[in-house]
Amino acid sequence: MKIAIVGCGALGSYYGAKLNYDGHETWFLARSDFEAIRRAGVRVTGASESFTTRPKCAQSPSAIGVCDLVIIGLKTTANDQFAHLLPPLVGPSTAILTLQNGLGNEEDLARLFPVPQILGGLCFVSLNRIGPAEIRHINGGRILMGEHLRWPEPRTHDIASAFRHAGVPCDVTDNLARAHWLKLVWNIAFNGLGVASAAGLDAVLQGEVPASSALGPCLPTNELLGSSLWLPLVREVMLEVIAAANALNLKIEPDYADREIERTRGMGVYYASTLVDFERGSPLELKSLFLEPLRLARESQVPVPRLDALARVLVSLDRLRGTGAKSG
Amino acid sequence: MKIAIVGCGALGSYYGAKLNYDGHETWFLARSDFEAIRRAGVRVTGASESFTTRPKCAQSPSAIGVCDLVIIGLKTTANDQFAHLLPPLVGPSTAILTLQNGLGNEEDLARLFPVPQILGGLCFVSLNRIGPAEIRHINGGRILMGEHLRWPEPRTHDIASAFRHAGVPCDVTDNLARAHWLKLVWNIAFNGLGVASAAGLDAVLQGEVPASSALGPCLPTNELLGSSLWLPLVREVMLEVIAAANALNLKIEPDYADREIERTRGMGVYYASTLVDFERGSPLELKSLFLEPLRLARESQVPVPRLDALARVLVSLDRLRGTGAKSG
Repeated sequence: MKIAIVGCGALGSYYGAKLNYDGHETWFLARSDFEAIRRAGVRVTGASESFTTRPKCAQSPSAIGVCDLVIIGLKTTANDQFAHLLPPLVGPSTAILTLQNGLGNEEDLARLFPVPQILGGLCFVSLNRIGPAEIRHINGGRILMGEHLRWPEPRTHDIASAFRHAGVPCDVTDNLARAHWLKLVWNIAFNGLGVASAAGLDAVLQGEVPASSALGPCLPTNELLGSSLWLPLVREVMLEVIAAANALNLKIEPDYADREIERTRGMGVYYASTLVDFERGSPLELKSLFLEPLRLARESQVPVPRLDALARVLVSLDRLRGTGAKSG
Repeated sequence: MKIAIVGCGALGSYYGAKLNYDGHETWFLARSDFEAIRRAGVRVTGASESFTTRPKCAQSPSAIGVCDLVIIGLKTTANDQFAHLLPPLVGPSTAILTLQNGLGNEEDLARLFPVPQILGGLCFVSLNRIGPAEIRHINGGRILMGEHLRWPEPRTHDIASAFRHAGVPCDVTDNLARAHWLKLVWNIAFNGLGVASAAGLDAVLQGEVPASSALGPCLPTNELLGSSLWLPLVREVMLEVIAAANALNLKIEPDYADREIERTRGMGVYYASTLVDFERGSPLELKSLFLEPLRLARESQVPVPRLDALARVLVSLDRLRGTGAKSG
């Protein structure tokens, strides 16, 4: 397969490196890392795997041309680049797979390309970009993949096979929307409350960050779960997200919240990705992870007061951080 | 009423000036025009009206604070600014009225605010910004206003009354979605084909702009309608948009296309707003005017080959123009 990787952060680079190492013609569409990739390839290191591979590399999509598979690993805050980056890569039989976080990414693709060409994948992996074209694999790697608004096709299973052959566990779901919401239950709670905890519990309960308040540290999963103040909030947020999903007829059992809490206890000290973004001063993936789920809850008239307050705090924090970055 | 105008281009400035002139406490949230507004106010000139008015003016939303009504006149390409610009202006009883083009703007607001606070308005007006805080009124002015996903409320009629008192014809619709699509029938045809005509008829039929092709001029309404080659395409695009709307159960009669064509003949030589954007090198409002309607058509499985090809050409032209602007 001829494959393009669009968005060569940790996620895109990791899966692109695995596919290239397995022998696919893999093109990295790279900006800042272009020279590093050309000079030395892409390096993946980790406890369970270490390798270097030399994918093809281009700075513009027209230098790559039409591919069999386009994998999107961009931050969702960059989705307005789709119209500029993707059309030269996509022909009538190209499959486009977004591995991005949260809701609305398949819809962003569906403004540009026919629905039957669009796939979404959820990644259960922990990675760090430790330098240009250098990725640290911490653990996991599995992808759960599905069609946008449709049932899986033979083509979908072929792509899943290609991932598995390259050493990436990959399953196909019949219901991509449900898979997204199941992952959101965790993400909204631990990414959302983890970042919002920097503003303090009162702010998260009120939905307002006082202008004068100093920000504290972001709480990792174990600290949220170990606190008798935060734990009930984790659970309430999860239950609201489940209610919103169920209003869309996605049939998530209420005890899923408690099962996710128990599973997360087993993960020890874990800093969810949005916490890392926030502490780096990067823009938060607000729309796909928080605001689009909130919009759908509102449209379904499901009361989600905790999620509403949480989103308001995150919007404030993103603005504060953004303002700070500009003036600093 | 305390009113904020967010997006002080021609549209926001015109309606904001009318409301301020009528005695409302009107705040312009301004960037580039801040000094001009503070020094000399906002000037509206035209065949049927000329006046200067001195609204309040601020450079940051927190300097304005919570308003009764927030009017959004931003280009839809700036909607990712909503989360940074709007929260300080919005309290629990603030009405938020987007006067922006096309689809998805109310949804962008609904990610941040409860549905009952969100209104949309369609403007039937021709304006030009001729200098900082100087607006030329060419003709029209009517607003057709409705609630997002709901029936009109007493509050909606109050806002409409305020506009009418300020000399702006204003009606309330029971079905904002249908009103949007009715306007899109015209906009997609004349804004879309008007810009795409720069690439030539073959490109628009094929959905592809050849890499080497020189761009011609954009065709105004009368030239599209006066050409035996373009006129059938205008009609076909309109009929596709009507079919997409009807798949959403919006009940637009097929003869609406011919009625719009006849009405447009009466307008003489008319350059739709997207043509002006394109010739200035501004980004096109692709998502709200073309790509979101196309996405909804695809989701409904309505065949829209003309719209699909048109959108591909517009995406290419926007990219070419954008690339040109960066390198030039």
